[in-house]
Amino acid sequence: MRILGIDTSLRSSGYAVVEAKSGRIKAVEYGVIRNPSGRPHSFCLREIHDHLRHLITQTAPEAAAIEGGFFFKNAKTAMILGEARGVAIAVCASAGIPIYEYSPRSVKQSLTGFGAAQKDQVARMVMTILGLPDLPQEDAGDALAIAICHLQSRSGIPELQEKPI
Amino acid sequence: MRILGIDTSLRSSGYAVVEAKSGRIKAVEYGVIRNPSGRPHSFCLREIHDHLRHLITQTAPEAAAIEGGFFFKNAKTAMILGEARGVAIAVCASAGIPIYEYSPRSVKQSLTGFGAAQKDQVARMVMTILGLPDLPQEDAGDALAIAICHLQSRSGIPELQEKPI
Repeated sequence: MRILGIDTSLRSSGYAVVEAKSGRIKAVEYGVIRNPSGRPHSFCLREIHDHLRHLITQTAPEAAAIEGGFFFKNAKTAMILGEARGVAIAVCASAGIPIYEYSPRSVKQSLTGFGAAQKDQVARMVMTILGLPDLPQEDAGDALAIAICHLQSRSGIPELQEKPI
Repeated sequence: MRILGIDTSLRSSGYAVVEAKSGRIKAVEYGVIRNPSGRPHSFCLREIHDHLRHLITQTAPEAAAIEGGFFFKNAKTAMILGEARGVAIAVCASAGIPIYEYSPRSVKQSLTGFGAAQKDQVARMVMTILGLPDLPQEDAGDALAIAICHLQSRSGIPELQEKPI
């Protein structure tokens, strides 16, 4: 089973495709969609849109997983994140891929057994589970973590099972 | 010149394509992308995505105009609107269409000469300018108004001229 994990933001969105096969999880592809500051807003969203469409065509994931359950004080920040997130969700949905949402706590719980784990503990678990030679870049690591979380929730950690959004 | 006007929201997004030709403005197409309550979130965003892509292919607008300059108290509402808005922006940008943003005040000013005009005054001006037989549905009317605002700002109301986003 192939899962696309996405950690969206306007300037730096992590993406990852992971695959479970014969009881092992391996990384098929992962990286970061970067939008340098100064690039017009609409160009950033186009980059996220076109990059994810291409990735889905190339890797054919069966489901996608994204972060949810955010809490913001600032409505403007929420709107900008919403824009990037909406693009990612629409691209997956338009390709017929169901999308599952996990809170940051669920992702940490799934990977480390501890919902309040530090970011670097999660990144090290990602590295260990996938047998990566190096720590992944931060946003790519978050995308790998959420994809692994989805695979693990599918294989029987009931409290993590989420409905498609 | 053909302009696509979009008034986005998750459940009801207005769209309109208007054309300026020989000193007159006419409506090419307009309507509302409806997402009934209960439809999953991702399906709503897919509907906006796929509908706008199809509309752009069919009508080939040269530029798009959307509302901007929102102020929200509630970050959750801002994020949901951001999602719908991000999809609209990405679809236009991915099709190579520049996107311009106007505040609600600029749209009202452009159509009625009065930035604090009532919604129904704006709708009646839309009806008059385009020679429509009936008042357009609310969200479609807002999309028509923003497209007309862009055409009028291009033809020389300097204080309304906005940069592409």
